[in-house]
Amino acid sequence: MNTDVRSFHPPRRTLMGPGPSDVPPRVLAAMTAPTIGHLDPAFVAFMDTVKDLLRYAFQTRNELTYPVSGPGTAGMESAVVNLVEPGDKVIVCRNGAFGGRLREMVVRCGGTAIVVEDRWGEPVDPAKLEAALAAHPEAKVVAFVHGETSTGVLSDAATLIGLARARGCLTIVDAVTSLGGAPVSVDLWQADVVYSGSQKCLSCPPGLAPITFSPRALEAIRRRKTPVQSWFMDADLIMGYWGGGKRTYHHTAPINLLYGLHESLVILREGTLESAWARHWRNHEALCAGLEAMGLKMLVAEPARLPQLNTVRVPEGIDEAAVRARLLEECDLEIGGGLGDLAGKIWRIGLMGAASCERNVLYCLSALEQVLSGMGAAMRRGEACAAAREKLRE
Amino acid sequence: MNTDVRSFHPPRRTLMGPGPSDVPPRVLAAMTAPTIGHLDPAFVAFMDTVKDLLRYAFQTRNELTYPVSGPGTAGMESAVVNLVEPGDKVIVCRNGAFGGRLREMVVRCGGTAIVVEDRWGEPVDPAKLEAALAAHPEAKVVAFVHGETSTGVLSDAATLIGLARARGCLTIVDAVTSLGGAPVSVDLWQADVVYSGSQKCLSCPPGLAPITFSPRALEAIRRRKTPVQSWFMDADLIMGYWGGGKRTYHHTAPINLLYGLHESLVILREGTLESAWARHWRNHEALCAGLEAMGLKMLVAEPARLPQLNTVRVPEGIDEAAVRARLLEECDLEIGGGLGDLAGKIWRIGLMGAASCERNVLYCLSALEQVLSGMGAAMRRGEACAAAREKLRE
Repeated sequence: MNTDVRSFHPPRRTLMGPGPSDVPPRVLAAMTAPTIGHLDPAFVAFMDTVKDLLRYAFQTRNELTYPVSGPGTAGMESAVVNLVEPGDKVIVCRNGAFGGRLREMVVRCGGTAIVVEDRWGEPVDPAKLEAALAAHPEAKVVAFVHGETSTGVLSDAATLIGLARARGCLTIVDAVTSLGGAPVSVDLWQADVVYSGSQKCLSCPPGLAPITFSPRALEAIRRRKTPVQSWFMDADLIMGYWGGGKRTYHHTAPINLLYGLHESLVILREGTLESAWARHWRNHEALCAGLEAMGLKMLVAEPARLPQLNTVRVPEGIDEAAVRARLLEECDLEIGGGLGDLAGKIWRIGLMGAASCERNVLYCLSALEQVLSGMGAAMRRGEACAAAREKLRE
Repeated sequence: MNTDVRSFHPPRRTLMGPGPSDVPPRVLAAMTAPTIGHLDPAFVAFMDTVKDLLRYAFQTRNELTYPVSGPGTAGMESAVVNLVEPGDKVIVCRNGAFGGRLREMVVRCGGTAIVVEDRWGEPVDPAKLEAALAAHPEAKVVAFVHGETSTGVLSDAATLIGLARARGCLTIVDAVTSLGGAPVSVDLWQADVVYSGSQKCLSCPPGLAPITFSPRALEAIRRRKTPVQSWFMDADLIMGYWGGGKRTYHHTAPINLLYGLHESLVILREGTLESAWARHWRNHEALCAGLEAMGLKMLVAEPARLPQLNTVRVPEGIDEAAVRARLLEECDLEIGGGLGDLAGKIWRIGLMGAASCERNVLYCLSALEQVLSGMGAAMRRGEACAAAREKLRE
């Protein structure tokens, strides 16, 4: 036994990695309200408001909309296990780490995964999806990642969903990083299952995964021949608790975290989604302008950049992990490194939710400039912040 | 869209139901520390402390000990999916709702469940388990609930595990309600997988499920012929993050909830487990004395009572839900109703963790006396608190 039995006092960081992102004090404070029971009438009314606010965030009227009691990965698995039965064919678009994770989950619940492969750093190619749909007319589901957190790429969800629907396929859309920071319009897109995470552009601590199921997805769940392999994630059972009418106990909801999510959704609603999207875009452009003024190069071509997660190439000869370590130690600033094949080659700079603000753009640029020049990187100095400010004034 | 977009201010309750239990201000305050990244070096060191503190709570040296990023039900499913493969025979002891849930999970991951049935309100009968073990020598796992939250029964874990081990079976033990309130001695018992929940006797908000795996359980996981059906719950993958050495990202840990769990475990350690067990026992005896002085009858026979969850029979002719509603409205006091066949027949009164205190014993007795006499129940008045106080002085 460790003898160091003391309260923990974490350092105060600026979180500009791939998530979690900084949590506003209002959200942290909301979580300290007294815990109440998960069947308390006061909590039951609160749950209805949470569902309404999630419907706003997802831009949907879907009845079956609730926060999964687990992180984004549990949201992903909830989508897959409810929709996919053993033997089902699922077309999985893979252009990064999370597409790979989707594939793995499809296989683990007995589905056959047909992988549509795109290079890390590029969006899902609709032509490749169309070819896969033509080659596999029996496919039941198309799954893809809207905003790839591993690469900073935003794929064209509306087009991909349109192709899938034209062939009668259901869709699973990963909106973990996109929700709240870039347009996610579940009903307009006619998407079937869309899930997200609380800790990205919603600016809530991690631990909850908002999810929504279309009536078509519900119908597919009703027609299943086999039970959902996960009792914990079984959407039909969960609706006995989260649905309207009499609430039946399924599992104990994470009460205080839900207080936090509620508050973060209230903040989103107060400010409107449209202005959140615009803010993410503006700060993204300013950050890119600053990084490019420094002489750094973005990984992703302009039309497919995910505004809330900016991937930038590590300059030749620079030890990227050492840069991140110094940013953390000297500036209390967290940015992310690359995953998979991109490990060591890129940084991932998040501007998510409340953390997508002018102060963070400028702080990150000045900190990165200080650390990189301290390490002797070939770069232009003294221009980054000015370039960012100019963009912000536009 | 609901137009009521306002911060939520829950009522202040006294939580004496089957969980969640009241959370100490220290734990709530810990959760408001700034969120940091799940790969931050400061967080990685913190994780080691959390694991050590969990080992203390479980009384184990098991390396593979961590908090599942989900509620107790996710802990239960993590235990089952990691240990049970399609075709495995699992003896499930069912003497309440949670034994039934265990059975359902075994079936959903392809296992064959052999059910050892005991009446709700009675402990698992070791003779019946022994008979089932003799009849099914090929069984791989025995699963049972240590403290049945649906009935208030504590089963004899050491004896049940001893029988299972004598036949070469692994064991899964549900300690959701027992951990921290009654002796749970994982190593002494030689239990294999034991899981719990954060919101019962650990006095943390719901949303985390401490779990521990013995080296034998680990070996069984290593010898699996099929992958664990849940990617999210795959203990082997999770150890890449929670294990020692280099931390590999698996999913984003629920940072702020973990701050809360850490603080609640620090409180447990400061006070020692032994004194927590003794406190739970003392307050349980006082509550029972008070309830019996009122003329109420306990459901469970004395030797098998779970001190942190007291089940009491509803007097003839009393609408139990109306009593609970009045307790909530008039006294801001939550107690639980019965589940399944016991619905309408019992109340479940929790004295869990920090909420197992003299004040709550006396408050509950006086509130119940007031409400019951207001509803014209046949009962003795004015004696309950005195009887409880007498027990507390012993």
